[in-house]
Amino acid sequence: MDAISVIRTKRDRGELTPEQIDWVIDAYTRGEVADEQMSALAMAILLNGMNRTEIARWTAAMIASGERMDFAALSRPTTDKHSTGGVGDKITLPLAPLVAACGAAVPQLSGRGLGHTGGTLDKLESIPGWRAHLSNEEMLHVLDTTGAVICAAGDGLAPADKKLYALRDVTGTVEAIPLIASSIMSKKIAEGTGALVLDVKVGSGAFMKTIEDARELASTMVALGTDSGVRTVALLTDMATPLGLTAGNALEVRESVEVLAGGGPKDVVDLTLALAREMLDAAGLKDADPEKALADGSAMDVWRRMISAQGGDVDAPLPVAREQHVVMAPSTGVLTRLDAYDIGVAAWRLGAGRARKEDPVQAGAGVELHAKPGDTVTAGQPLLTLHTDTPEKFDYALGALPDAYDIAQAGTAFTATPVVRERIA
Amino acid sequence: MDAISVIRTKRDRGELTPEQIDWVIDAYTRGEVADEQMSALAMAILLNGMNRTEIARWTAAMIASGERMDFAALSRPTTDKHSTGGVGDKITLPLAPLVAACGAAVPQLSGRGLGHTGGTLDKLESIPGWRAHLSNEEMLHVLDTTGAVICAAGDGLAPADKKLYALRDVTGTVEAIPLIASSIMSKKIAEGTGALVLDVKVGSGAFMKTIEDARELASTMVALGTDSGVRTVALLTDMATPLGLTAGNALEVRESVEVLAGGGPKDVVDLTLALAREMLDAAGLKDADPEKALADGSAMDVWRRMISAQGGDVDAPLPVAREQHVVMAPSTGVLTRLDAYDIGVAAWRLGAGRARKEDPVQAGAGVELHAKPGDTVTAGQPLLTLHTDTPEKFDYALGALPDAYDIAQAGTAFTATPVVRERIA
Repeated sequence: MDAISVIRTKRDRGELTPEQIDWVIDAYTRGEVADEQMSALAMAILLNGMNRTEIARWTAAMIASGERMDFAALSRPTTDKHSTGGVGDKITLPLAPLVAACGAAVPQLSGRGLGHTGGTLDKLESIPGWRAHLSNEEMLHVLDTTGAVICAAGDGLAPADKKLYALRDVTGTVEAIPLIASSIMSKKIAEGTGALVLDVKVGSGAFMKTIEDARELASTMVALGTDSGVRTVALLTDMATPLGLTAGNALEVRESVEVLAGGGPKDVVDLTLALAREMLDAAGLKDADPEKALADGSAMDVWRRMISAQGGDVDAPLPVAREQHVVMAPSTGVLTRLDAYDIGVAAWRLGAGRARKEDPVQAGAGVELHAKPGDTVTAGQPLLTLHTDTPEKFDYALGALPDAYDIAQAGTAFTATPVVRERIA
Repeated sequence: MDAISVIRTKRDRGELTPEQIDWVIDAYTRGEVADEQMSALAMAILLNGMNRTEIARWTAAMIASGERMDFAALSRPTTDKHSTGGVGDKITLPLAPLVAACGAAVPQLSGRGLGHTGGTLDKLESIPGWRAHLSNEEMLHVLDTTGAVICAAGDGLAPADKKLYALRDVTGTVEAIPLIASSIMSKKIAEGTGALVLDVKVGSGAFMKTIEDARELASTMVALGTDSGVRTVALLTDMATPLGLTAGNALEVRESVEVLAGGGPKDVVDLTLALAREMLDAAGLKDADPEKALADGSAMDVWRRMISAQGGDVDAPLPVAREQHVVMAPSTGVLTRLDAYDIGVAAWRLGAGRARKEDPVQAGAGVELHAKPGDTVTAGQPLLTLHTDTPEKFDYALGALPDAYDIAQAGTAFTATPVVRERIA
């Protein structure tokens, strides 16, 4: 077995054998297959694809590269959610405590922001004192005592994926559906959850720009999960427009707390409830009532316990950026489009995201929206507020926004895209 | 400018801009673009191609990465040959002194064996005392005083190509026509020859297995040479059958000397003369008579002076392998096929080639053929003789040969493939 013959097989549109896949993942993890060989293979996979059998084996080999967690000792059924990443996607924050309040255990291993998309850990780190990194024992303790935990995945989980993900990031091979699917599912299956709901974003602000690509990714992941004994469902959800009215770290925590307090923007509430119902259903808790858990404050109680258990001060004021710049509506009419990608790039440029993985993020930076598609706006009213600690970045951020929105004549008919577009099970 | 955007352009089937190409070649040579990024780009080029404009710029950028030689001070016109590599392809050995004997200067920068194909420098090193590595001054001196020089290319010539070639070798990206063409032509153009004849091999023993691929490679290279002011012609020549009756280092030197002495196998003589005529024609020496230069010993005189000038003892006996094993013809009839690839692999396994670039080769190892396609053979007569210093390799070498030849009933009609199949100018 050697790397060149494995690369050639895929380069020449062949099917990789189980032995080739097991060998190349193991040898890459051990450093015997070099980065330059794996990146050539990743490009061949991106351009020539992998079939279902290959993707399943690739995923299994990545799981086998590390440890597997086990939540069997918990008294509650486990259920987890994964989002493929979007702009303003703070859903994990209200969702995990909400689902826990309804009786499930939610072990939510999360990541950091990538490119124009925000990361759950970056958002929660804007809460003074909150710690993302827990030992396996600490994680189980928080999960057992509060019902939910949101923390960084440990190094022991799918180390092959960790190494391959970092490589793909610098070699233009991120956008390969077989590699995206196996990367996500290897971590989720190794994590040991019993049920999983996938939030596959589609639109300008998502990695999947078309419904066809999102559908392919979703059905690939549902098959992988199901075949591994994890009850898996996917929702394809809209990411043409940012979720809610904020994109940024502390800004999104504030909005999430509003949702837990029974308020918050309708699209965030709707998507949180839709995902909660799927997670509870997949966990076998068919009688749970998440709407009630939001209204009666029990979800908020779990949030406060969960954040406190990881050192977060739930009563401390959230960081606010030092400077603001308001973008006014240039005309009167109906806002018909507000582009998720452009808003995401602006938030990233203001300091909410990072250019390299070792860069810090600004807690207060981001973009606040004062209108959403379908709203009527008046010339001169605030449309967006940009927040940053580094005001020299305002011009750079504004450079992402010239085509970020469309305002049509007053009275123009507008049909909103539903937040949940399709369900794949 | 960054590596990921260059990779993405080609991954998404776009055309690389001149600025992208110049930047990526320069940054790779300087180590700013990493091996794993260049290998992903090489795979994208292999699978998605490059157009003529891109290949020309890529070649120019590789030339610009190093020094250029200049033969303008010589009194004779320069002309060079390059073969894409085959089995038993010793043509450079008789050809360079022959063309020099007819009045041209032949600066033949050559390489070592790769895989199942032999290398000119490996062959000449079987001559006691002969040195492949010359300084630029030594090279010019040998060329000026004898009319021909065969030596290793210096490190200063197209260093980007040297680095990229080594990378492609371990990442399954050797077989990309744009990269093969630019690799060959960057070195030949940087070398500064005025005329160039390309011997593009086609068949089982060549890198190009089909006439279509060989044609594409040849016309790509001819266009590159012509656009750079080098008079360039390509012959597509047969490599389904080994050239001549030997594959191995000292074995091929012996056969080359036979050709220079006016004898030798017909196919070797025919191809040597065909290439000599093209080289002389491209150099503007239309009245030269290479047939006469072979017959009257003047080519042999240049050979002796050229080898002596590089320390070679032309009168010393050539190394002979310690052990021989004879393969007998299993039946009586007409030999209709003798596979170049299989014979090349057997010679390589016997020790004539190397598995890794730092391995030594055996001077005496290789395969001697006692019949060629079209010949009548008798059951039990010697068909092949295997030569090696490491007789424990006989079984390994024989393992390459079970399908190496076909013997048809006596009287079966046989039509030989001509050595020169097409000419592209």
